[in-house]
Amino acid sequence: MDSKKIPKSAVTRISLCLREINRLEKEGKDKVSSTELGDLAGLTDVQVRKDFSYFGQFGRSGAGYDVVQLKKIIERLLGKDKAWEIVLVGAGNIGSALLRYPGFKNQGFIIKEVFDADTKKIDKRYGDVTVKDVKGLEDAVKSSKNIKIAIIAVPAESAQVVAEQLVRADIKCILNFAPVLLKVNGGVMVKNIDLSNELESFSFFLSSNGNED
Amino acid sequence: MDSKKIPKSAVTRISLCLREINRLEKEGKDKVSSTELGDLAGLTDVQVRKDFSYFGQFGRSGAGYDVVQLKKIIERLLGKDKAWEIVLVGAGNIGSALLRYPGFKNQGFIIKEVFDADTKKIDKRYGDVTVKDVKGLEDAVKSSKNIKIAIIAVPAESAQVVAEQLVRADIKCILNFAPVLLKVNGGVMVKNIDLSNELESFSFFLSSNGNED
Repeated sequence: MDSKKIPKSAVTRISLCLREINRLEKEGKDKVSSTELGDLAGLTDVQVRKDFSYFGQFGRSGAGYDVVQLKKIIERLLGKDKAWEIVLVGAGNIGSALLRYPGFKNQGFIIKEVFDADTKKIDKRYGDVTVKDVKGLEDAVKSSKNIKIAIIAVPAESAQVVAEQLVRADIKCILNFAPVLLKVNGGVMVKNIDLSNELESFSFFLSSNGNED
Repeated sequence: MDSKKIPKSAVTRISLCLREINRLEKEGKDKVSSTELGDLAGLTDVQVRKDFSYFGQFGRSGAGYDVVQLKKIIERLLGKDKAWEIVLVGAGNIGSALLRYPGFKNQGFIIKEVFDADTKKIDKRYGDVTVKDVKGLEDAVKSSKNIKIAIIAVPAESAQVVAEQLVRADIKCILNFAPVLLKVNGGVMVKNIDLSNELESFSFFLSSNGNED
């Protein structure tokens, strides 16, 4: 399997399938059809089969996919056969919620380092990690061998500077909560979470359709 | 202007432009060109001009758009000439971070009611709001006239039941943080925030490309 040939949209869908496969495994199910899985993940059965065809043939039969085998294959594909270390920059409302959120660790994503500029937040402990002064960010990430993923949860006006430090420290993926467009070189993957942007789709929808009755 | 004709993707882009226009206004700029604005928002100038053409002509000149006028027009389009009330279900890590996050209120989105099933969280105060027992959710939202937007921040296994209660109480828009596909009728707009899904794009990217060097 050449994973470079899998389109990004398929990766997102396969990841959604994994979420449901994990649930099915917990419920003790051992087989799942593409129709069932599609229904759970919000996809058509054709889409599921097409996305899974990137893995090659692996034991699909009339009875459906083997849940345990499917889980293993998808986890390997998504790089989830190992844990990933994350650096978090910003320990404010969003950052501290992420630190307290057990879902990441359960999914194999471990926030290993946390930095903030605010002296009131520096030295605060969250489980195994202690908030450090952002002045040490670049050196700390550089000297860590394993941290390739960063989460930016700083105010908009600091985000670009932080992003540049992270890229210099060889970070390859940034999940950005700051409401600003980060300008980084093409080799770095950035995903943005902008809640106001989502809510504005709602206010538009309600203004233009939802309030008619 | 018939706002029903504006595609969803354009609404998202226009909302990103508004973010930058707000910043420009704060910085005291009074004119902005489509090229400058596109650069700030991560769009091409052609895209910006096309998206803005939905508003009709309104004073674009060689010198660019008038920042204050543009802001007003976009705010009206996005339904942001009024405040929007929100019901939040779930006052755990994510929910409480949202309650403490000042960005929503600044953007005209006000969390008016909060519900949780956990007796340890019920009656807790966050600023102006007090967490109420989720048993009262449906009635409270029904009797409020203005709440059409909900945020779901409950565990995956409770999310569908909560969504159904919200829809019965005439909620039209749901921002869903629970890692599960909500099944609601077509008239309800659902947006999902799934951080594990975003992180899995990263682990896939790092496994398939980023670790080659």
